[in-house]
Amino acid sequence: MQNQLIELLEVDQIISQVALKTEVITVSLSEAIGKVLAETIHADRDFPPFNRVAMDGIAINYNAIEKGKHQFKIEGIQAAGSPQMTLQDTENCLEVMTGAMLPENADVVIPYEWTRKEGDAMIVEDFNNIQSFGNIHKQGNDQEKGDLLLESGTPITSAEIGLLATVGKYEVKVYAKPKVAIIATGDELVNIEDTPAPHQIRMSNCFTIQSRLQEEGLDSKIFHLKDDYERLKQAIQSLFEEYDIFVFSGGVSKGKFDYLPKVFEELGVSKKFHGVKQRPGKPFWFGVTAKNQPIFALPGNPVSTYLCTNRYLMPWLYKQECISAPLVQKYATLSDEFTFKKPLSFFLQVKAYYDEEGKLWAQPVKGGGSGDMTSLLQANAFLELPGEKSDFSKDEKLPIWFYKK
Amino acid sequence: MQNQLIELLEVDQIISQVALKTEVITVSLSEAIGKVLAETIHADRDFPPFNRVAMDGIAINYNAIEKGKHQFKIEGIQAAGSPQMTLQDTENCLEVMTGAMLPENADVVIPYEWTRKEGDAMIVEDFNNIQSFGNIHKQGNDQEKGDLLLESGTPITSAEIGLLATVGKYEVKVYAKPKVAIIATGDELVNIEDTPAPHQIRMSNCFTIQSRLQEEGLDSKIFHLKDDYERLKQAIQSLFEEYDIFVFSGGVSKGKFDYLPKVFEELGVSKKFHGVKQRPGKPFWFGVTAKNQPIFALPGNPVSTYLCTNRYLMPWLYKQECISAPLVQKYATLSDEFTFKKPLSFFLQVKAYYDEEGKLWAQPVKGGGSGDMTSLLQANAFLELPGEKSDFSKDEKLPIWFYKK
Repeated sequence: MQNQLIELLEVDQIISQVALKTEVITVSLSEAIGKVLAETIHADRDFPPFNRVAMDGIAINYNAIEKGKHQFKIEGIQAAGSPQMTLQDTENCLEVMTGAMLPENADVVIPYEWTRKEGDAMIVEDFNNIQSFGNIHKQGNDQEKGDLLLESGTPITSAEIGLLATVGKYEVKVYAKPKVAIIATGDELVNIEDTPAPHQIRMSNCFTIQSRLQEEGLDSKIFHLKDDYERLKQAIQSLFEEYDIFVFSGGVSKGKFDYLPKVFEELGVSKKFHGVKQRPGKPFWFGVTAKNQPIFALPGNPVSTYLCTNRYLMPWLYKQECISAPLVQKYATLSDEFTFKKPLSFFLQVKAYYDEEGKLWAQPVKGGGSGDMTSLLQANAFLELPGEKSDFSKDEKLPIWFYKK
Repeated sequence: MQNQLIELLEVDQIISQVALKTEVITVSLSEAIGKVLAETIHADRDFPPFNRVAMDGIAINYNAIEKGKHQFKIEGIQAAGSPQMTLQDTENCLEVMTGAMLPENADVVIPYEWTRKEGDAMIVEDFNNIQSFGNIHKQGNDQEKGDLLLESGTPITSAEIGLLATVGKYEVKVYAKPKVAIIATGDELVNIEDTPAPHQIRMSNCFTIQSRLQEEGLDSKIFHLKDDYERLKQAIQSLFEEYDIFVFSGGVSKGKFDYLPKVFEELGVSKKFHGVKQRPGKPFWFGVTAKNQPIFALPGNPVSTYLCTNRYLMPWLYKQECISAPLVQKYATLSDEFTFKKPLSFFLQVKAYYDEEGKLWAQPVKGGGSGDMTSLLQANAFLELPGEKSDFSKDEKLPIWFYKK
């Protein structure tokens, strides 16, 4: 009846070996954020595409400055978005606006701040910072036409969106996001709209998992399956046809009515492990279907579900680039001593915070049994206390898993 | 013609004084993630609602253990989701499943792992950890009916979603997200679908801003207005009626064709500042409408736009709780010396990373003129070099503003 519990390190290795199959789709630019680019992007023209005026002011010919000239008759105005004008007389000037093309025959822009107007001429008052091609963003300075701008496989953030817009990619090839099915099992669960009988509780884990994925921009669908062996099997079989990733909540502890492992076996699922040396979340079950779709079957206690989601599911999704991984510290310093009986690893609910010096601290949150959702509200991360020892001292540096930003 | 440039600190103070008017709306639970709760939530029943079995195993009466009994005849099975059963004979046992109600007359659960089955009875083999109410999550242990669970004003993350589901809040009162209008101005801009003439460029800033907001779960709408004074004024006036926050890109430098400040004035907008002691982003303009809606009018250079978005707009949105602020360090250590001529503050594009010790470093990214979008791709943050001095040494700790996770 006892399963072999496995080490956390082994869990990480096993899960990381499962790779998601990827599909390339075309989306509009406004749908591309948070996805991964599936084509290479080259510059369609020089960046900037012309000698671009970088300050509002006047454009002149630098030779005139070298000759000691400081007064320039205004020939006209070169606006941004207008075709290039020509400075007819190289001893005159053209007013120029930021973003405009540098006029023909001009090679320096002098900002208005260094000038004053006198009649139909501009007088330059400050010569200190004037240099040839000053305040001009030169054509091709940043990138030349044809340059590689973005490699396929690049996660698309807002910075990439700006670049894609610049080169006119109103449609972009990206990797499709995986279809995630979240499946709640257990006859004790009723819908959130319903009033539970004394022996029942409302479904909540599936919403927690779904919203955790939503926070990272990944959609999913929730299913509730009753503890009826045949119906469970049929339903799961048809989900296998339609979805890419399966997250089960409940149904994998060792109870008589926890049919899931048996259903999985009959459906040709290869069990990778059942039971991890950790608390909460000991009954965590993991396997892959015949088509190599991963199944994360999480224990039904709310805190266990949440821990396994954040400790195993999310990092795997980061690795698959379904979700972009946050830049966070991987270790935090324990603010108070803490004891937990080995040999299970313990995931301690902590409030992580930076002190004035920028050091990341993890402060244990009181309460926090594996059924206690409310303690999760006070905390923002789990601190991983390895099962090799029982006593953890203040100031010890330990792995941290954030679940809030 | 020269505006009074203001200090960054002053900018922060002025912007932080503008408060968003808030509206309460009701959304379904699955739409509540990332929003802010606008009602208080109380426990609708005890948490757990009954003495809840925490392990699969057998439920017995503790007196029997005290009397030295170790063999227990099985009366039946108490499943999760079934009404409470009664242990008829307190010297017998009932098999119990995780999540089930503790049977009447039982007060301890012994996990299967400590037992073996023999015929129609269970033999307890390991007495080491057996105690009264062991492996039982007691009714009301976490929360009692009526307890305050969530205050109004709480940001809703996945942890809160789980709790809201548990208490049956399939509909939740939240603060409505603000309606954001992003307005591109400038005749030099063409749509991304179009091929620009030599003097034109494609609109990109508005997509950068929009996708930056999208990354944080905030929708917005993009408008492109041409540099025609009367039409600009009419269009902006009607946007003032419909939207809550305005982000303009371009049109606030000192050019002849940058009509925006004048339009704003005529529409009764109160200008708070125009010009900040910073680079990039010096021409940043900020004001509020007669109805106290904020207007962020950002300079048109791509990097300036992006800097101002991340340095001013996003933190203000965090403060307004339209977006939940990430837990990030506010300072990073410069990895190489850097010089920038004071007195303007300089926002250096950096690649921020944690070293093995968990120290946050900021490494300057080469290139990065204010028009160079591509340098933004290499970097993930801006390091703020205050304008008080010009030389910044390696190992100096400076404020950092992240724009990628």
